[in-house]
Amino acid sequence: MRELDINKEINNICNFIAGYVRQSGMDNVVIGLSGGVDSSLSAALAVTALGKEHVYGVMLPWKESNSASYEDALSLAEKLGIHHQKIDITPMVEPYFSIYQTDADNLRLGNWMARIRMCVLYDLSAKYRALVLGTSNRTELLIGYFTQYGDGACALEPIGHLYKTEVSAMAKVLNIPQQIIDKTPTADLWADQTDEGEIGMSYKELDLILHAITETNLNIRSIINLGFSEENVLRVKSMMERTEFKRKNPPLINDWTLDK
Amino acid sequence: MRELDINKEINNICNFIAGYVRQSGMDNVVIGLSGGVDSSLSAALAVTALGKEHVYGVMLPWKESNSASYEDALSLAEKLGIHHQKIDITPMVEPYFSIYQTDADNLRLGNWMARIRMCVLYDLSAKYRALVLGTSNRTELLIGYFTQYGDGACALEPIGHLYKTEVSAMAKVLNIPQQIIDKTPTADLWADQTDEGEIGMSYKELDLILHAITETNLNIRSIINLGFSEENVLRVKSMMERTEFKRKNPPLINDWTLDK
Repeated sequence: MRELDINKEINNICNFIAGYVRQSGMDNVVIGLSGGVDSSLSAALAVTALGKEHVYGVMLPWKESNSASYEDALSLAEKLGIHHQKIDITPMVEPYFSIYQTDADNLRLGNWMARIRMCVLYDLSAKYRALVLGTSNRTELLIGYFTQYGDGACALEPIGHLYKTEVSAMAKVLNIPQQIIDKTPTADLWADQTDEGEIGMSYKELDLILHAITETNLNIRSIINLGFSEENVLRVKSMMERTEFKRKNPPLINDWTLDK
Repeated sequence: MRELDINKEINNICNFIAGYVRQSGMDNVVIGLSGGVDSSLSAALAVTALGKEHVYGVMLPWKESNSASYEDALSLAEKLGIHHQKIDITPMVEPYFSIYQTDADNLRLGNWMARIRMCVLYDLSAKYRALVLGTSNRTELLIGYFTQYGDGACALEPIGHLYKTEVSAMAKVLNIPQQIIDKTPTADLWADQTDEGEIGMSYKELDLILHAITETNLNIRSIINLGFSEENVLRVKSMMERTEFKRKNPPLINDWTLDK
């Protein structure tokens, strides 16, 4: 696995946030706070980059969200001293499913919620003349573990180049509460859902496999020979390939070839 | 202005739609029908490419939408023989503004509606195992006349390489009702809104200027010297530059440089 100089990396990310926001003619960012480590770290970086008065944190629970997640997000926002508010998305979630789609499954509901959160963050970005700060990490982006046009939608991705395990290491340096760093990662779409359960392996293993696939010259067979589970390596490779469309703009005719 | 071989172009677009949909492992497309020429043409192309049974048209009015637009979309869907349904988005639009944002302006409301339409189309794409077919043309894309993560969100852009004036010419060949081709283009966000009024010039002039800027080697001064209004040429160039972010994926730190 690669070794990051965490303090230097924090400095680079803060320059990126401050530079990109100013280049866009803005002063502020708005960020969805889930109570998880990714959004907590992103908010802390934005405070370091721009100052707390330029950061708007938004908690976007729905009626069945885990209230502990909200409490963690709230206490982080208070600790950072940023503007913060709670917008319960239930009124924008229930009508569609109660009127038009009474038999939709959890996955459709979860994607809808992710997209409604995007709608709210983008509306608030107009209200506060702010850029929407993304909170996706490299691990999620590479395997497509995000909702297209939902949590994948933002103006910039300040931690999009960091593996999940690196996010945790950086969060520790920036004094994110240990309770947030230690909690089991979840998209909180239904009870007992965990990222690692859905993905089928630990983030530690996933990051090592992703690093080997994307940052070494080893082919898949050689990576398996390093001692990784063949099943997991192939699954990661497949997740990367199947979700390629999520990381690209919609193609026009000239971008497309049949033989790719 | 460039001269298109319309029939050849129709053939190429249909190959693109059919090829891309199958490459994605799907059989169907879902498309928002506004009653305007862009979505009408896109639907007709999809029918030619895939067959009418594989095309799901969705009318997405809200309570203040022009009912004539809905009637035009409905009669087009019936003429094409595609699956079609109407989903009134009012229940997903009003709660946010009545509960949380009582003083939002028309622009914020319009962007919210465009994004809610995206949410519905993407949910239906999961329901019908379909790709969301985009309806943006080259003119709109180049000047950024669309809502990011709203009508700009789709799986592919079948007419994204055609200028607005070319869309009308192709619509004629594909027997789109003259009434749809002739109507004044509007995003229908408020009464008497027209695209050309908002943009500040006719589509005919806009397309000629865009063609000169993007498909000739002429610099801005030479283009003005061709006889275009200096004010309009500079305005088009400025719209292209200011909306560049809408045509790109959110940058990661390594995508960004201060000096661009």
